Amino acid sequence: MDSPRLVIVGSIGIDHIETPRQKRENLLGGSASYACAAASFFTPPGMVGGVGDDFPEAFLDLYRKFSVDLAGLQKREGRTFAWTGVYEENMDNRSTLETVLGVFETFQPDLPASYVDAPYVFLGNMAPELQLHVLQQMKAPAFVLADTMDLWINIARDKLVEVIGRVTMLTLNESEARLLTGAHNLLAAAEQLLDMGPEYILIKKGEHGSMLISRHGLYIQPAFPLASFEDPTGAGDTFAGALMGWIAKHRTHDRAAIRHAMMHGSVVASFGVESFSLDRLACLTPEEIDTRVSALIEMIRV
Amino acid sequence: MDSPRLVIVGSIGIDHIETPRQKRENLLGGSASYACAAASFFTPPGMVGGVGDDFPEAFLDLYRKFSVDLAGLQKREGRTFAWTGVYEENMDNRSTLETVLGVFETFQPDLPASYVDAPYVFLGNMAPELQLHVLQQMKAPAFVLADTMDLWINIARDKLVEVIGRVTMLTLNESEARLLTGAHNLLAAAEQLLDMGPEYILIKKGEHGSMLISRHGLYIQPAFPLASFEDPTGAGDTFAGALMGWIAKHRTHDRAAIRHAMMHGSVVASFGVESFSLDRLACLTPEEIDTRVSALIEMIRV
Repeated sequence: MDSPRLVIVGSIGIDHIETPRQKRENLLGGSASYACAAASFFTPPGMVGGVGDDFPEAFLDLYRKFSVDLAGLQKREGRTFAWTGVYEENMDNRSTLETVLGVFETFQPDLPASYVDAPYVFLGNMAPELQLHVLQQMKAPAFVLADTMDLWINIARDKLVEVIGRVTMLTLNESEARLLTGAHNLLAAAEQLLDMGPEYILIKKGEHGSMLISRHGLYIQPAFPLASFEDPTGAGDTFAGALMGWIAKHRTHDRAAIRHAMMHGSVVASFGVESFSLDRLACLTPEEIDTRVSALIEMIRV
Repeated sequence: MDSPRLVIVGSIGIDHIETPRQKRENLLGGSASYACAAASFFTPPGMVGGVGDDFPEAFLDLYRKFSVDLAGLQKREGRTFAWTGVYEENMDNRSTLETVLGVFETFQPDLPASYVDAPYVFLGNMAPELQLHVLQQMKAPAFVLADTMDLWINIARDKLVEVIGRVTMLTLNESEARLLTGAHNLLAAAEQLLDMGPEYILIKKGEHGSMLISRHGLYIQPAFPLASFEDPTGAGDTFAGALMGWIAKHRTHDRAAIRHAMMHGSVVASFGVESFSLDRLACLTPEEIDTRVSALIEMIRV
């Protein structure tokens, strides 16, 4: 296998999810799973993650089906990270019932030699210390996207700020942007985040789409409106994975390219939430993506 | 004065508003005030509304400054409708402290003869019975936009459904769309609303923009992102007034025209919330509107 142009680092987990309509157990989840599957529509990504010895062979087969490079996948004794969550009525909020860290507790994202020259990197949500560990191994990445969450803002702020200072794009949701900066207004929050170093701040707003802010201006990316969806888990990672996959495929990240990449990220994510886990992505075709991208462009055209 | 091409019917009120940063009293408010001021950037609207004998002459002067046709303004003995509201921290919610109905309680929207041939009508939020009374007087309007609120959905549903069956476009916010249809998903709710008769359903989502749904498809209108704003009161009426003003000016309401009209509605509303009452609109120039429309189009261009 060629060296991957895109390296994706994140969690790999077994999810147990309850929505108002369904209860599903032993699903393949984790940020690396969603992001790699989404990226694979554009470029075969190199995955970095850790699983326990309980990790089903069927899930490895699924990764392979998505053409994911597994040279960076570590299998160790112990349990795979597991998350149990419940979505409230209307899916607007969710609560975590149980988290089993398993092998993720001592996970060290060590990169295989074939990954360190990759120009594109997605650092999924995990301890900032681990994100830094990845960056230290990369030779000279051209574009790094990092995700984070409220937990790290609260308990590892200094390390997180160090990560932010070293990435090209930071992605976070509205409440995280407010928590990290203390600014309620999203533009004001983004201004402060740009001051920390990144060229781009990508604010995720769920069904309301996302917003990209840079010193050169603003890009508004609406979400593709869905008549129904089954499970929003992993939507942000799917978005990020497809975005980075698009950039890695086209080997360009100028402002126009990033807009196209976000458009594709938004569309692939809209497919992802139609089913649990990677079910919808597993049968998604490039033609379906193109059709929905065209439809979304038509929905915003004036 | 020529007969107005656009007739706007709604409330006229004196607002007392408290935001986390300011407390302002005796402001000119009401749906007709906001909508007429916004429409006036495109066409001189004919206003239909009622005020008491306490209504300040200065507010009438302001209407005239906006070139509002006041032939349909009724002045009667009694108090002008008054609303006292408080916005919570972050302006995400507001509560009503006091409502004085005054002359609005017995208001009958009787149209002057010069209004009944107008092709374009905006029925601001008020009792559906009054909205029907307006429609009964209009000769053959080409395009009617109606607004409503949860109150009428709860206490005058049948009459409201009758109104909806007679308008071209219905505008309401997300929670009202859900309340009226019982559907949580907005596309599903809009489908049900289209079944009631209108050609278009315009769902308002505040800072997240708006969405237009018809049998021909969907249009997504992002809001213009603001670094700060002072008072969101009347934003929906400002949007609707500018939208209808744009259509009345261009005498066309095909699908492309409606998208342009919404773009202008969104932009004029973004100016409106920068200050209390009509303060910002009173000094707004057509050039400023054009500049912001271009900026917003650039923000969504892929």
